[in-house]
Amino acid sequence: MDIHQKIQRLNNIKTDLFGKDFLLTWEKEDSSIRMILEVANILKEMRANNISTRLFDSGLAISNFRDNSTRTRFSFASASNLLGLAVQDLDEEKSQIAHGETVRETASMISFMSDFIGIRDDMFLGEGNKYMREVGAALDEGVAKGVLPSRPGIVNLQCDMDHPTQSLADLMHLKQQFGSLENLRGKKIVMSWAYSPSYGKPLSVPQGIIALMSRFGMNIELAYPEGYELIPEIVDIAKSNATTSGGSFNISHSMEDAMKDADIVYPKSWAPFHIMQQRTELLKNADKQGLKELEQQCLANNTWFKNWEYDAKKMKQTKNGDALYLHCLPADISGVSCEAGEVNAAVFERYRIKTYLEAGYKPYVIAAIMLTNKFAQPAEILTKIVERKRLRMGF
Amino acid sequence: MDIHQKIQRLNNIKTDLFGKDFLLTWEKEDSSIRMILEVANILKEMRANNISTRLFDSGLAISNFRDNSTRTRFSFASASNLLGLAVQDLDEEKSQIAHGETVRETASMISFMSDFIGIRDDMFLGEGNKYMREVGAALDEGVAKGVLPSRPGIVNLQCDMDHPTQSLADLMHLKQQFGSLENLRGKKIVMSWAYSPSYGKPLSVPQGIIALMSRFGMNIELAYPEGYELIPEIVDIAKSNATTSGGSFNISHSMEDAMKDADIVYPKSWAPFHIMQQRTELLKNADKQGLKELEQQCLANNTWFKNWEYDAKKMKQTKNGDALYLHCLPADISGVSCEAGEVNAAVFERYRIKTYLEAGYKPYVIAAIMLTNKFAQPAEILTKIVERKRLRMGF
Amino acid sequence: MDIHQKIQRLNNIKTDLFGKDFLLTWEKEDSSIRMILEVANILKEMRANNISTRLFDSGLAISNFRDNSTRTRFSFASASNLLGLAVQDLDEEKSQIAHGETVRETASMISFMSDFIGIRDDMFLGEGNKYMREVGAALDEGVAKGVLPSRPGIVNLQCDMDHPTQSLADLMHLKQQFGSLENLRGKKIVMSWAYSPSYGKPLSVPQGIIALMSRFGMNIELAYPEGYELIPEIVDIAKSNATTSGGSFNISHSMEDAMKDADIVYPKSWAPFHIMQQRTELLKNADKQGLKELEQQCLANNTWFKNWEYDAKKMKQTKNGDALYLHCLPADISGVSCEAGEVNAAVFERYRIKTYLEAGYKPYVIAAIMLTNKFAQPAEILTKIVERKRLRMGF
Repeated sequence: MDIHQKIQRLNNIKTDLFGKDFLLTWEKEDSSIRMILEVANILKEMRANNISTRLFDSGLAISNFRDNSTRTRFSFASASNLLGLAVQDLDEEKSQIAHGETVRETASMISFMSDFIGIRDDMFLGEGNKYMREVGAALDEGVAKGVLPSRPGIVNLQCDMDHPTQSLADLMHLKQQFGSLENLRGKKIVMSWAYSPSYGKPLSVPQGIIALMSRFGMNIELAYPEGYELIPEIVDIAKSNATTSGGSFNISHSMEDAMKDADIVYPKSWAPFHIMQQRTELLKNADKQGLKELEQQCLANNTWFKNWEYDAKKMKQTKNGDALYLHCLPADISGVSCEAGEVNAAVFERYRIKTYLEAGYKPYVIAAIMLTNKFAQPAEILTKIVERKRLRMGF
Repeated sequence: MDIHQKIQRLNNIKTDLFGKDFLLTWEKEDSSIRMILEVANILKEMRANNISTRLFDSGLAISNFRDNSTRTRFSFASASNLLGLAVQDLDEEKSQIAHGETVRETASMISFMSDFIGIRDDMFLGEGNKYMREVGAALDEGVAKGVLPSRPGIVNLQCDMDHPTQSLADLMHLKQQFGSLENLRGKKIVMSWAYSPSYGKPLSVPQGIIALMSRFGMNIELAYPEGYELIPEIVDIAKSNATTSGGSFNISHSMEDAMKDADIVYPKSWAPFHIMQQRTELLKNADKQGLKELEQQCLANNTWFKNWEYDAKKMKQTKNGDALYLHCLPADISGVSCEAGEVNAAVFERYRIKTYLEAGYKPYVIAAIMLTNKFAQPAEILTKIVERKRLRMGF
Repeated sequence: MDIHQKIQRLNNIKTDLFGKDFLLTWEKEDSSIRMILEVANILKEMRANNISTRLFDSGLAISNFRDNSTRTRFSFASASNLLGLAVQDLDEEKSQIAHGETVRETASMISFMSDFIGIRDDMFLGEGNKYMREVGAALDEGVAKGVLPSRPGIVNLQCDMDHPTQSLADLMHLKQQFGSLENLRGKKIVMSWAYSPSYGKPLSVPQGIIALMSRFGMNIELAYPEGYELIPEIVDIAKSNATTSGGSFNISHSMEDAMKDADIVYPKSWAPFHIMQQRTELLKNADKQGLKELEQQCLANNTWFKNWEYDAKKMKQTKNGDALYLHCLPADISGVSCEAGEVNAAVFERYRIKTYLEAGYKPYVIAAIMLTNKFAQPAEILTKIVERKRLRMGF
């Protein structure tokens, strides 16, 4: 299928993307999910063929990272640049935000000439997604009151609930590896907790994975040691999705058992829901001693589950002993990045390049979210890009 | 009036802007002030209408912030981007400047391919504006000796004396709110000190306001508790301007009295002139203990004037109980950003959106300063922009 | 000679630059060195004449500075911008790299849409250049395995062995000052250690200078106090180059004697090779006490050689008492940036502007490295630039 045909197909997809923030995959129609994947795929092909996909002659994309990040930061920067936007960091350490500015005010102040705001805020349960919505409400008010010439879009670059650009990149990878979204039907995917010598890892990746993958008729197995629950409401969404899509959803408490006949595995550490709730309270109260104790307790607790490492033995249990291994990276690799971790070094090495391929979809997913937010007719603008025949490098 | 007519009007304005740094409003002709406002207004309209105002195919704008900033940093980044310049931060913490480089040398080193340098240096009385002129002198030498291919313009993003991009944005806001600059004639504007639980706030905003607003026939009332003087020479400029422009200038020491029949109020905290002088000396001598004591003394002194809060009662004293409230943001809002501060929360909320509108002019003021510095015939280049018909977003 | 003729000349130069990283000058053919200088010179002329040299409609240049830098950082940013690339900093303090990511993984993660990676890693002997090659190997694997759509080029912005963009800028300066590379034949250049009250200065500049300048028939004099050796293998390269090119190479241990009849002098401090080796070991072992002691010992050692200051007396020894003074800046200037340092203040002042001119070539050298890495036929693309007639500023 050539690029024109791929673009033509978009005409049949009605979405709820134009002018809307992208905060949670489960707020978006199936058609919108498909649109993001198709547009991302087209942009990827265009770039590989040295076609300039620049859509903005000038414009700003604000990156607001309230937690550390390398790969998502670069993905956001890459996506912005691909479309012609310059990235401006909102660095709260060097800004006046730390001095009592309200979210509402800052949101307006950074948006007079912004086209997009990417936010990562995954540290505090109950806070990150809420913060993004507060920013969104402030922007809505700004447009309504004539403060802003247009409404910058917001893209969730990871919050306490979801990590949509990650799960969509993962989905693109699955589509590519299995040939189509339809081929995912009936496949077993295991989202499993894994041991890590660290503390406080967000829940957004496992939550994002079960909530998104359950929409494609897959059999979802969520495995974790008792006590490592996810946010119940999001688990309910995944269950409901599985029913609707003709798949299934199961929770179990043995990594080894869960892996049986798996087509896809995603072994990844996270902090237990109730611990993260306690942590949020302690953080709000700036209770340093309490936080220290919680960390110790949590790390001690983790060590009971050091056998939750994805190793050769568990891999053998999977379909043909070769389930596709997924990870959002960086993985805690036993003997490499830590003494004992989420995955055995030899097992990781076997799928290492595939995890890079998986990660490589993220910039295009973000660019597709941006494009579909700003252009009501993606097929039209993509056609114009092809016809423009402008090279990205050289001329 | 359509945009062509607005542009045509610029042909009649002779300015002293081309190739000149913008360091203090009082160094600029009235015609230049008007030009900045007109060009800023045209650029704002163009952007709102998705007209690309890109003037540089490549080029750098250096941002040199020697003090924290969110809104001015974003304004500078937005203005640069609007014209096609990429921003490069000169971050002195991660640079070698801290290791003994002279201003002169650094100025050259960052300017080989720079088109503009925006400097914020408002911490030390007697230092900030001086620093900007040292940079300017170094750039002049660089051009004269063939080191630099062209002279980057310098824009003062706040110094110890003036904050021109702020006061010009405020003036644009007044022009918009009152219909024209001519309508400002005879209006009473109160630049008033206000209580804040913080220390060492720059004097540049009140100084910039009285020095600029006094040029338009307004009646300026400068109010502060005794001891909170501004730089005398700048007060003299404001007095002289008021006389020349047919307005008046008065100093008083009661916020309540000052507010009577005011059309416009600007309640804003600042540190007293003589305290800032002491502070500069202590900083030069790296006298940490002295600085700590000065801060304590200054904060204690402030608390004598907690009643200098702009509240409903004082608002009632103003013209129709509804004077236009100005603030450079962020304001110290009682019960919101601090226990007791510059402004009552309900009063602030009433004018909150208008303060956002006020702030929204700053990026365009900076862009207008850049454009008029680099293009001797603003009308000509703006006409070419209109005729080019290039879209900012899409094509 | 007009610009067309300058471009035509490039057709006769066969190089090994296209698609190759630029890590060490001594890995590159003489023709490649000449090509870099010619292309840099053409780009400089184009920019001075307001010709846009933009070659990328979008694209990213990653700057990875593992040590502080102002001038090289700005040179890299300027070069990137000149060709149309946006700079994205890989800041290891705020990234997850510090948390155990492998070089290999990070290299891929930042490169999905990157065109160039500039790396400065000069702190640890035996590490910096090795690190760059590890990044390069990871990128090669990424391309081979389909992870990356194209191979970003790597440019060494200073490592433990070489500082090629510095030495090439220095060479451009010499070419300009003496009229041609041919005119350098037979000239005496003194690369001399100089006293500095600092510790741990990299060896890359002196090494880069002797290894590059020895290729043009110059008589190289390397002078340092005994104990301040450079990496022996690189000294051997310089010796061999000198023989091949018809020049000479001599090592001596008196600054005063070395300066006799010099045409060009480069007095610059560095740390002794064996000290840097010890330092690397101590750093690897995180031996803070050992590092502290080594620093004390090294500084104490330096003070024996305070007379290694380039002063008026030594300057008088040089050819006509007026040898061209080179420095990579910032220099340790006695009485200015330190009490006693590398160079006398009056002597430095005499050549100050020339050191600025010297520094001004670096952005163009980097841009030339980028252009020749990405375009197999530099003459062709430069001709197209001329014919495009696009202005950098205005239109």
